[in-house]
Amino acid sequence: MSIIEALQWRYAAKRMNSEQVPEDKIKSILEAARLAPTSSGLQPFKIFVVTNQKLKERIKPLAFNQPQITECSHLAIFAAWDTYTIERFEEYFSHYEKERELPKGFSDSYKAAVAKQLTSWSIEKQQEHTAKQAYIAASFAMVEAAVLQVDASPMEGFAMTELDKLMKFDQQGLKSVLLLPIGYRDAESDWQTGLKKVRKHQEAMIEYLD
Amino acid sequence: MSIIEALQWRYAAKRMNSEQVPEDKIKSILEAARLAPTSSGLQPFKIFVVTNQKLKERIKPLAFNQPQITECSHLAIFAAWDTYTIERFEEYFSHYEKERELPKGFSDSYKAAVAKQLTSWSIEKQQEHTAKQAYIAASFAMVEAAVLQVDASPMEGFAMTELDKLMKFDQQGLKSVLLLPIGYRDAESDWQTGLKKVRKHQEAMIEYLD
Repeated sequence: MSIIEALQWRYAAKRMNSEQVPEDKIKSILEAARLAPTSSGLQPFKIFVVTNQKLKERIKPLAFNQPQITECSHLAIFAAWDTYTIERFEEYFSHYEKERELPKGFSDSYKAAVAKQLTSWSIEKQQEHTAKQAYIAASFAMVEAAVLQVDASPMEGFAMTELDKLMKFDQQGLKSVLLLPIGYRDAESDWQTGLKKVRKHQEAMIEYLD
Repeated sequence: MSIIEALQWRYAAKRMNSEQVPEDKIKSILEAARLAPTSSGLQPFKIFVVTNQKLKERIKPLAFNQPQITECSHLAIFAAWDTYTIERFEEYFSHYEKERELPKGFSDSYKAAVAKQLTSWSIEKQQEHTAKQAYIAASFAMVEAAVLQVDASPMEGFAMTELDKLMKFDQQGLKSVLLLPIGYRDAESDWQTGLKKVRKHQEAMIEYLD
């Protein structure tokens, strides 16, 4: 199935049927997120994948009791760095040098430049930046899910601060930015199933400057 | 080619070879962006696709003279709404009702709720929100490009205010948030071609809560 066909099939399922998504498909969906590009390659976020049903039940009221939280197979939580720190740059560039088999310290001047720029920003701007990188990864996961005919419904509307406390993200220097319930649509109970997809027409959205 | 294979192939090409990407591929890449999900379906952004070489030359100095701006085939500029307005909600929900063949005014209460929430936010928060939606669309475009073996190199580092003036985005209530040069890598001049892709290991990035 082409990506375009898959994207026409996908929609943000609001009801899921609790069926388990096979591990190999979950691995591919997360692998797409892992391979997504990010600013300077920093990947400034973590992904928590919740299958524990009791934990899902505790998260549900923080997301307006939306049923897909507990009806999904795997609940992915994207949690972005709350700030850029020297330690985080050190860790990244050390990993980078190892992976590329470069001498230790090879990236020091680039590291210093990146660190100088990103830490000069306000905390709000840093958090916006890390959240955006998490969105790229979540988006890559969504496309892979669609091609695998797995539903994935991005959710921004939840009590972020409360979730950060529940998940102890605040103690890890993380902030939750997006929930992505992954599972299978329950076509019978979801009134949105089968409705015409509404998108802007190409002409209203895209302008060519030749 | 699977998405995972395509994502292993892709990287952010810093040099491109000026070869034209066929129109049908460009259309598919933009169609993936158009089909991407957004908050409440609002798609609060536009995509400008620049092929005019003179215009690319004027944009290049606003992006630190990075060569891919002029060496790409199509330069996509993602420009997000600078604010949520009643007029923009009206336009969206009117379109929505027409597409779904619903009676005019069917969505009035939902529209009012969405408008009340989003316009209550600070301008900064609104702009962060519209930018994130544009990132989802840009990400979908990147995945489709990779599967079509077309390079697409997201760029956040450019003089946004100056670009908004040059492109007259400010007069359209838009703010540029991301550049996406689309084209073909110039393997000979791009030192990054063929280097090992560096990503966090799954274990460092993903935590399972069973």
